[in-house]
Formats: sequence, structure tokens, C-alpha cells
Amino acid sequence: MTKDANFIYDQIRFKNSLLCVGLDPDIEKMPSIYIKNQYPLFDFCKDVIECTQDFAIAYKLNVAFFESHGPAGWKQLADVIRLIPENCLIIADAKRADIGNTSQQYASYYFDTLGADAITLHPYMGKDSLEPFLKYREKWSIILSLTSNQGSQDFEFQKLETGEYLYEKVMHTYLDSPYNANLMFVCGATHPSEFIHIRKICPDHFLLVPGVGTQGGELKSIIIKGKNKQGGLLINVSRKITYPEQDSDYRKAVYNAAKNYQREMAAYLYE
Amino acid sequence: MTKDANFIYDQIRFKNSLLCVGLDPDIEKMPSIYIKNQYPLFDFCKDVIECTQDFAIAYKLNVAFFESHGPAGWKQLADVIRLIPENCLIIADAKRADIGNTSQQYASYYFDTLGADAITLHPYMGKDSLEPFLKYREKWSIILSLTSNQGSQDFEFQKLETGEYLYEKVMHTYLDSPYNANLMFVCGATHPSEFIHIRKICPDHFLLVPGVGTQGGELKSIIIKGKNKQGGLLINVSRKITYPEQDSDYRKAVYNAAKNYQREMAAYLYE
Repeated sequence: MTKDANFIYDQIRFKNSLLCVGLDPDIEKMPSIYIKNQYPLFDFCKDVIECTQDFAIAYKLNVAFFESHGPAGWKQLADVIRLIPENCLIIADAKRADIGNTSQQYASYYFDTLGADAITLHPYMGKDSLEPFLKYREKWSIILSLTSNQGSQDFEFQKLETGEYLYEKVMHTYLDSPYNANLMFVCGATHPSEFIHIRKICPDHFLLVPGVGTQGGELKSIIIKGKNKQGGLLINVSRKITYPEQDSDYRKAVYNAAKNYQREMAAYLYE
Repeated sequence: MTKDANFIYDQIRFKNSLLCVGLDPDIEKMPSIYIKNQYPLFDFCKDVIECTQDFAIAYKLNVAFFESHGPAGWKQLADVIRLIPENCLIIADAKRADIGNTSQQYASYYFDTLGADAITLHPYMGKDSLEPFLKYREKWSIILSLTSNQGSQDFEFQKLETGEYLYEKVMHTYLDSPYNANLMFVCGATHPSEFIHIRKICPDHFLLVPGVGTQGGELKSIIIKGKNKQGGLLINVSRKITYPEQDSDYRKAVYNAAKNYQREMAAYLYE
């Protein structure tokens, strides 16, 4: 099933939400009830998905938190992906990229074998390194552009001799490729002042926005500045939903946290 | 066991070689005798390691070719790592990097669980994204700087307003960090004219050099321009050794290919 832009726009309207729920199953942080299970990552993610699916447009699976468990982690990643409802986008937050024949291995695994709808990608090695992903025209390639961490200052905000920031050059370069229809860009919520400018670079593309919640990005400002006519934002919240401060009734706390984010998003979405 | 710079220098002198053998176990390319085995990736890598260990300073495992096989691939990756002789460096060519708490998951898995000595990393997200790797001071962080593919023109060779190329800025930035002792840099053999300049930026650091062989990089030029007093190069050859054109006696063909590379390297190493 192809989850194209219209599919996502429909979900945004239907659920009145821009919420992407980040699944970072961290044994150190999840409620202790899961830890002794045979498949703790799976059981934890299953509960989170069940409690958030009314509000989530997308789920972003942080691959590192599965990979770090070796073969059992990968089995659970595949099983979690199969749980995600049909009406939600499945984003593999894998941050891959390599030379062509190697990227092809990753693309085929994430898209064909695991059935992800989208994958996050490092732009540094240039267009040919991402082509194997981009060629999947019915899938989404989500390119790291302006990330939410402090280190975004080190290179992404370096000015080129043309006057552009590197992150702008990254966006322009991939937008100028023949595969620009199935692109999204990662733009961190910790840089609200850049969003108006980013929207000039790509008025119609989806932006995947990490950094709301634990990392401190401000939701209202991002939505007002970053939305387009049909929404056009997938705003990721991970820890503030999946590791609520009050978790005596864990499932209820997750449900409420997701609902609160959805309501706040809805308030600004059509403002 | 810590495989520090002196350990590697000793191996370079002892084996009179700069060879890093790249393990990219590709079902489409490996001899058909392996394909029907229960663990084809493992059996293939085992033979390659046995036939090349007299000449190899390091083995570079291309993680994508294991990851693409799911849980069974990760099991085989772990098993292959255990096969690599004590006197060789184990490089996980994973090309990872993410925000701090996520990079920590990768660092712990590759270094602590799998026992790799080194990992390749994307620099784009900046210093804080790589810090969890760099903090392992007895391990090696190998940072993509100037890659061997054509896409290196897209960003790595972009000039900043300071006059530096982005790839130079990347090298300077990580060299200026508190963790500069356990760094290596990826510098592709397809850019021989840059090597004299790269050696001015980092006279003492190891360079991991892909792109010799199938990608066309010229060995002599790279060694003459890129070596330092103790060698300081790990020159990766993957396909030209592991997929020899003449493979009627596969193990012998691999042995000979590795031996020929070692001899050619030795000729230029002390020239």
C-alpha cells in the first residue's frame, strides 16, 4: 500500500493531528513491568501504539534502540512494524547512507523486507549515495537537513561561499534531483526562527520535526511558522509521550500525553 | 585488548602491508558454493579471512550486507567478528551517527557487545552526535571526511566562506575536540591530489582509504602522497579481493589477490 502525500494529508485532516510518535524503547527508561518479558521492546511498543493510535499520523522507530539488542532486537523491530495500523506512516529512523551498492542493501531491507514507508538518511556523501533509496518512488526518503541537536552549529549552520548555509544547500541539492517528489526533510524544532525560511525553500514538502518535548522545541511557534496549507508537518514526540513522569497507570499516562499533544497541535493547525 | 596506534604500526611493519580487507558478503556475487549453506555470510567471510590474514592489518565489515539479512545476518556478523585474528583491527563499517542518547546505543553495541575496535561515522550532525563514540578512548572513531564516490562533490567539496572545503572543516572540527587521539578519517583513493593536503591537516592520524580496486583509485599515488613515517594508511580493498574474476579455485584466487596487493603496497611503503 502506497502512503503518498494525499494519504498523509487525509490522516492529518481526519485525526486533526500532526503527531508522529517516536518509539525509542529504552530498557533503562521503560516501566519495570516490561523488562522481564521475553520481548520487552515489542511489548512496550505494542502498548504505546495501542494507546496513541487515535492521535498519531506516523510512528518513528528509532532503530538504534532495537539494533543494540542484536538479533532479538531486529526480530522485535520487524514485529513492531507489523503492529502499526494501516492508516499510519511507518518511519524507520535509521539514519543510513553509504556508497551506491551498499545503500541498495539498506534500501531493500527497510523498504522491501521490513515494509517501512520512510527512512531517515544522512546527506553528507551526496546524491549518488541516496539514489538507491530515492528510486523507491512509492516510499519516502527523509533527509537530515537541520537537526535538533547543538552540533547542528558545527556544519549544518556553516555558511558556504555562495552565502547559503550548508543545510540549505542540502535541501536545494536534493530538491533539484529527479527524485524530488518523494522527499521529506528533517528540521529540528529547536530552530523555530529558520522555519519561515525553510518553507520558502520547500513550500510543499513534508518536514519531519524532532526536538519537541524533552529537547525543548516550542510547539506553537513551529506549527505557525512551519505548516503549509495541508499541514505538511510531522512533529515527533518520543520521550515526553513514552516516558511520562507520572506512570502509575502507564497506558493511561501515555494515552493522555498523546491526546494532549494532538489537542495542542489541532489548536494551532487551523489557527 | 586495546589495539592502539603502536599496535597497528607494529602490524604494518611485521606484515609489511597497509591492507584492510573489506568484507561485503553479497549473495549475488559470492561463489555459488556458499549460497545454499545455512550461514552463507559466515562461511564466505571465514574463507576470506583464512586466505587473507597473512596480509591484512585490518578487516572492514560492511554492516549493510549483514543487516539486510535480518536477525540471521546479525548473528553471522557477531560470529565473523569472533573469527578475526587478534593481530588485526576490526572495523565496523556501519556509518552511524545520531543525537547523543541514540549514538550511545550504537556505540555500546558495536564496541562493548560486538567487540569491534573501530566504527565508521557520519559527521554531518556535529560533534555532540559523535561524542558517545569518541568517549571510548581505547576504540577508534573513523569519521567520513572525503569519500570515494562521485557524490563527494555535492557537499564535501563545497567551499565554505572561510575558504575551506567542508571536508577540511570536518577534519579540523574533530581534530580540535578533546577526543582527537582516537580518531581516524575516511579519505577516498579517488582523490589522490588531495592527499598531500590532507597529510598537512593530520600528519599523524590514520587514514582509512576506500576506493582502490573496483572504484579505480590508484594505489601507488595514494601511498606515496598519503603515507606518514609509520605508514599511517589502512587501504581497503573489498571486491577486487573477495570477488576475483578467476574463481575456479576460489580460496587460492583470494589468497593471491591479497598477496599481490600486499606486495604492491610494500613496494611503495618504504620507497
